[in-house]
Amino acid sequence: MGTVENVKSKGGFTMPGEAGYEKLTLELAKKWGADVIRDSDGTELSDEIIDAGYGIYSTICIIRDHNEWAKKNQDKLQQSFLMTQPVVADKDTLTVGLLADYFDEQFRINDSEASLKYWQVYDRTTDTLVDASKWTYDKAAGSVTIKGVTPWHKYTVSFLAYRIWEEISMYNHTTNNWDKEHLMQIDPVYPETQEYMKNWLTDWCEKHPATTVVRFTSMFYNFVWIWGSSERNRQIYSDWASYDFTVSPKMLDDFAAKYGYSLTAEDFINQGKLHVTHMPGNKKKADWIDFINRFVISFGKELVDIAHKYNKKAYVFYDDSWVGIEPYKPTFKNFGFDGLIKCVFSGYEVRLCSGVDVDTHEIRLHPYLFPVGLGGAPTFMEGGNPTLDAKKYWNSVRRALLRCPIDRIGLGGYIHLVEDFPDFVEYIAKISDEFRAIRELHKAGKPYRCKTKVAVLHYWGAMRSWSLSGHFHETYMHDLIHINEALSGLPVDVKFINFDDVKNGALSDVDVVINAGAAGSAWSGGDAWKDEAVIEKLTKWVYDGGTFIGVGEPSAVPGFDTYFRMAHVLGVDEDIIDRVCHGQWSFDVDEKAAKAALTAGADIPEKVKCHLTDGKATVLAAKDNNPLFTTNSFGKGHGIYLSSFEVNNANTKLLLNLILNAGGEAADGNYLTDNADMECAFYPESRTLVVINNSDTTQECTVNTEYGAEKIRLDAFDTVIKTI
Amino acid sequence: MGTVENVKSKGGFTMPGEAGYEKLTLELAKKWGADVIRDSDGTELSDEIIDAGYGIYSTICIIRDHNEWAKKNQDKLQQSFLMTQPVVADKDTLTVGLLADYFDEQFRINDSEASLKYWQVYDRTTDTLVDASKWTYDKAAGSVTIKGVTPWHKYTVSFLAYRIWEEISMYNHTTNNWDKEHLMQIDPVYPETQEYMKNWLTDWCEKHPATTVVRFTSMFYNFVWIWGSSERNRQIYSDWASYDFTVSPKMLDDFAAKYGYSLTAEDFINQGKLHVTHMPGNKKKADWIDFINRFVISFGKELVDIAHKYNKKAYVFYDDSWVGIEPYKPTFKNFGFDGLIKCVFSGYEVRLCSGVDVDTHEIRLHPYLFPVGLGGAPTFMEGGNPTLDAKKYWNSVRRALLRCPIDRIGLGGYIHLVEDFPDFVEYIAKISDEFRAIRELHKAGKPYRCKTKVAVLHYWGAMRSWSLSGHFHETYMHDLIHINEALSGLPVDVKFINFDDVKNGALSDVDVVINAGAAGSAWSGGDAWKDEAVIEKLTKWVYDGGTFIGVGEPSAVPGFDTYFRMAHVLGVDEDIIDRVCHGQWSFDVDEKAAKAALTAGADIPEKVKCHLTDGKATVLAAKDNNPLFTTNSFGKGHGIYLSSFEVNNANTKLLLNLILNAGGEAADGNYLTDNADMECAFYPESRTLVVINNSDTTQECTVNTEYGAEKIRLDAFDTVIKTI
Repeated sequence: MGTVENVKSKGGFTMPGEAGYEKLTLELAKKWGADVIRDSDGTELSDEIIDAGYGIYSTICIIRDHNEWAKKNQDKLQQSFLMTQPVVADKDTLTVGLLADYFDEQFRINDSEASLKYWQVYDRTTDTLVDASKWTYDKAAGSVTIKGVTPWHKYTVSFLAYRIWEEISMYNHTTNNWDKEHLMQIDPVYPETQEYMKNWLTDWCEKHPATTVVRFTSMFYNFVWIWGSSERNRQIYSDWASYDFTVSPKMLDDFAAKYGYSLTAEDFINQGKLHVTHMPGNKKKADWIDFINRFVISFGKELVDIAHKYNKKAYVFYDDSWVGIEPYKPTFKNFGFDGLIKCVFSGYEVRLCSGVDVDTHEIRLHPYLFPVGLGGAPTFMEGGNPTLDAKKYWNSVRRALLRCPIDRIGLGGYIHLVEDFPDFVEYIAKISDEFRAIRELHKAGKPYRCKTKVAVLHYWGAMRSWSLSGHFHETYMHDLIHINEALSGLPVDVKFINFDDVKNGALSDVDVVINAGAAGSAWSGGDAWKDEAVIEKLTKWVYDGGTFIGVGEPSAVPGFDTYFRMAHVLGVDEDIIDRVCHGQWSFDVDEKAAKAALTAGADIPEKVKCHLTDGKATVLAAKDNNPLFTTNSFGKGHGIYLSSFEVNNANTKLLLNLILNAGGEAADGNYLTDNADMECAFYPESRTLVVINNSDTTQECTVNTEYGAEKIRLDAFDTVIKTI
Repeated sequence: MGTVENVKSKGGFTMPGEAGYEKLTLELAKKWGADVIRDSDGTELSDEIIDAGYGIYSTICIIRDHNEWAKKNQDKLQQSFLMTQPVVADKDTLTVGLLADYFDEQFRINDSEASLKYWQVYDRTTDTLVDASKWTYDKAAGSVTIKGVTPWHKYTVSFLAYRIWEEISMYNHTTNNWDKEHLMQIDPVYPETQEYMKNWLTDWCEKHPATTVVRFTSMFYNFVWIWGSSERNRQIYSDWASYDFTVSPKMLDDFAAKYGYSLTAEDFINQGKLHVTHMPGNKKKADWIDFINRFVISFGKELVDIAHKYNKKAYVFYDDSWVGIEPYKPTFKNFGFDGLIKCVFSGYEVRLCSGVDVDTHEIRLHPYLFPVGLGGAPTFMEGGNPTLDAKKYWNSVRRALLRCPIDRIGLGGYIHLVEDFPDFVEYIAKISDEFRAIRELHKAGKPYRCKTKVAVLHYWGAMRSWSLSGHFHETYMHDLIHINEALSGLPVDVKFINFDDVKNGALSDVDVVINAGAAGSAWSGGDAWKDEAVIEKLTKWVYDGGTFIGVGEPSAVPGFDTYFRMAHVLGVDEDIIDRVCHGQWSFDVDEKAAKAALTAGADIPEKVKCHLTDGKATVLAAKDNNPLFTTNSFGKGHGIYLSSFEVNNANTKLLLNLILNAGGEAADGNYLTDNADMECAFYPESRTLVVINNSDTTQECTVNTEYGAEKIRLDAFDTVIKTI
């Protein structure tokens, strides 16, 4: 590395460089306090930039950009199980075209012998497997003909298909109307692919001596993203944390050899529903995740070792082909990664990044330096307002940065696009300084947190801490992502636990348990609630003083006297059809209690229709006779019910107050603001108070501290950092 | 019988008489064309009325009004299973007060030895029976103590209680703040009670020589109506068609002897949910219904025979203690009843009455001659408008009267109340004449009906034709009651079928099948949809040209690839949580098709969130991306989906048009109006056209007939009857 003025006091900033814009790149690097310059998808760095003394990140995607090799090894492309849409038989023979429903630029049938043994034909009317002797595959037509079918039943064929267009490039390509060769993705499950990849990476390292950090994007297997044949329903299926794209006959065979049992197509296809992360898993899925994770680490480590051998650091991108990496599994350490980079829109993604056990945590801020942003809206072009975009994203991100340490921030895209947006350049300079100041505060010690400890309880527990499955805008329909986003910036210790954790003592050090989700979902818990040991532990824990906060359809499972298994604690239960002849308790909203609990502007939208179980719960909000927000005493503890939760400043403050109250802490205690639009953090070691305005208007608040009350007034979106 | 002027051309009208108002009674009898005078609950007839030459109805309630005998036979009162509300154990012993949750004026514990053997204690956390050795009953405290319980589990006690206040009188008593002795209800399951009742009825007949018709109100067992201890939740549970009030240790023992297996408390209590009519039944419930029905007929016939012996007719009231009578079972004929009387608010109740196989069908019109009506609203008192009430009820009732024969109408209550409402007297005279005119038209032959035949498919089939369980205002939350009400006045042949009927060929003579209800309910069908034979029959039938109309959550059952089992026919399926990662077909509402299908003012409220299955269904109405009204081709037939259905004039016309279209009949064919607010009926034998205005404003329409078009203009709520 060369010498960059002030690099120590600045730093922690990764900026995209661009050949042809050397002067701009280096000017901005100085202005933003960058210590690292990166390339991006579509840009290259020139020698002038590379030799300017900055750290250099180089992005590699080990499974794509190898079309030459891929073309010669068409049997080593990655795959997926697909199921044909059900077809109703009107006679005793049925012929089904396999790819009719799918985007033919994404898939090609794998009709090898090894593949065919995994294909399955199902009678979906009876949900039974059709014997393989009853169907034949017509290679030329790409169809399966089933004989001896039962007329008026419907049938599906599950088969394996090669994925012939890497999905991230397919998306970018399609969105931007590119006209380039389609990139394919190769599967490291084969020794030949591994050999090729290792040689390629070694060669790459040889040829990139200036690179200080190899950024892996990411490892091998993308999240599932299946496209359909119709433009009216192009994106048939997508789930950021699902394992559908990890399959191949070899992987399945290897699994059977190791686990002593075989997985079938149906174990993935699951009646066409597939196994989304939003639903509870099962033992087979857990085994498969473990198996893939072990494989990804095992071969991934070999690649990391190559980078290390060339004295380069290895960072992994926590997106795209991240499946199987599982940064929240304890096994993650075994990769030997030096850093992890997460692209963030929201506060919870900052927490997701910070919580991984790795040396360097880096976040990639939005907006990216692209002409258009999310959903095709203009960004760095006419009609765009990238500075306002940046402020809004920073608004979400900053409050989480106050609570947890992040080592680096950065941008991506084409640097030349900022030329026409000088206020954007200034704003990035401002928040970079803010970020570095906050980072220094964290280095001195942890910020103040209230005493009340929170656990979020769901099926996946710690493995799916903070994120459900992808970004907020992909998961907004789940109450829990709103809760997570609210929690991400609160001065509260939060852990994520599963139902086994509950049975194994995880409640001993928490004061609040939150269970939030739709009935049957992973977030509510589904069948996990059938386990009486879970009910016993939680019931006793509430009785002894804990607070159980249920949102939406908490603890819901059919088959018992109540639909919410924690109804005895919550004092409310859902109106299921079975109870349509039961009378309902009338109630009045306790206006005094409501006024005390509900912050101004807080709102509990109606998502579920409920009733009081024994009439004793205090109703704080209701719509007609539907209780939307209740609190119920149970022993020394409480059950709190919310029909749903939408994250916004007022509701976030409401959640904080519920947590504080559960722990017997005052809502106007030290290091809390008295304005829902403002938040603060206090760093005892440096005796520094940070106050932020989370709104788009000027706000003021008072913060009580051990050293007296602080009165703070802040412009829209602004921050103050002061020693008290 | 004496001579009443014009009784032949008038008649068919039963009016309440009242001692002390003899002049009024007889004047009105003449004005209204009454041929029968009745007593009512709370009124008596004087000799002057009795001797005036009218037929005399006398109301008896065979199971109550016998307090003297009941007091001496406290072990022969009627009973019910009750379950205590679940209590969470905080140590290993738990004591539960049995009647704490219940209205103590309604129930008394039956702690006889015969009863105790039917009591059950349940661990509701595990949903398992607690061995009887673990609990003891404390008679003095009225409580059960359970030992060796698992702390933090919740427990219930199911026990038998005598009902010590007959529910209909309890309701009237409580509503009107009466201060009279509580009437008890005696159970004819005991030979002693039967003997008493037979003697009582014989004696009664002896003492009532003028009575021409004994009106039984009704037979023995009331619909279930359980009251709670809190005024905030007084009516804990009520279901017009459920059998909870038929139990007793003797009845249960008799059942076991006959059927070879015993029913338990849990077979009735069902986790505290009980078995509501709105949910599918099971084999045990079917056996119990058959058993009770056989008993009610067997002893009921003895009572009918006594009435007949005294040359009185025996009519049965199809309300109150009607449970076990089951007028829609073929066994009903065995009672030997001469008539059936149904109190009606709605058109479907007219059909319900008309469809029973009995000589005389009589309906009791609303409003009753009481100071206050439904829900306590003023009727025959200041602030009331009984004439407008009568018009609105007649508006609902009349359109059904056009379609099916009814023999008699009538009123109930205190005749003196009409004195201050002369316009009411006039209006009743008018509609009595209308009724008699319509009755005469039916006598000549059936009215014109369109060719398209409709079947409503649900769990109960014909046994629960027309009514779900009680009045419209008690069941308005179910789509099907809206459908039934709409159908009740359409010129369409309708039958009600169950899933066995489908398998046994019931589809052969129908063109439209309607399945409407919430998932899991009896009306949707619940687990009946798991049966592939049902799916096969319906699928083939649609393929061959049938139209399947699904409303709400039709054919919904979990466990298969689609939630709606008829999704392949409907082209839509519900968005269940499993599919949250699936993309959805975009669509445009087909405005042209929508304009053709949707009558002006028709509206499909959003009740369910759905998606298109394969993108092929035509969307006729949607909210955002939620298809609310779709039509889908399947073979030669169609699947039509409605998110919900609310009965009103425009939606009723929409339903008619869907039916006509399904059968290939034109919406502007003969004997249909071109105005949704008006309907008509044509009686070919008399070549008479009846046109009605179902709205509260003047309307006009054109009706095409074989004899040319008729242009009709009618005042609000008015009727025209004309020969063409």
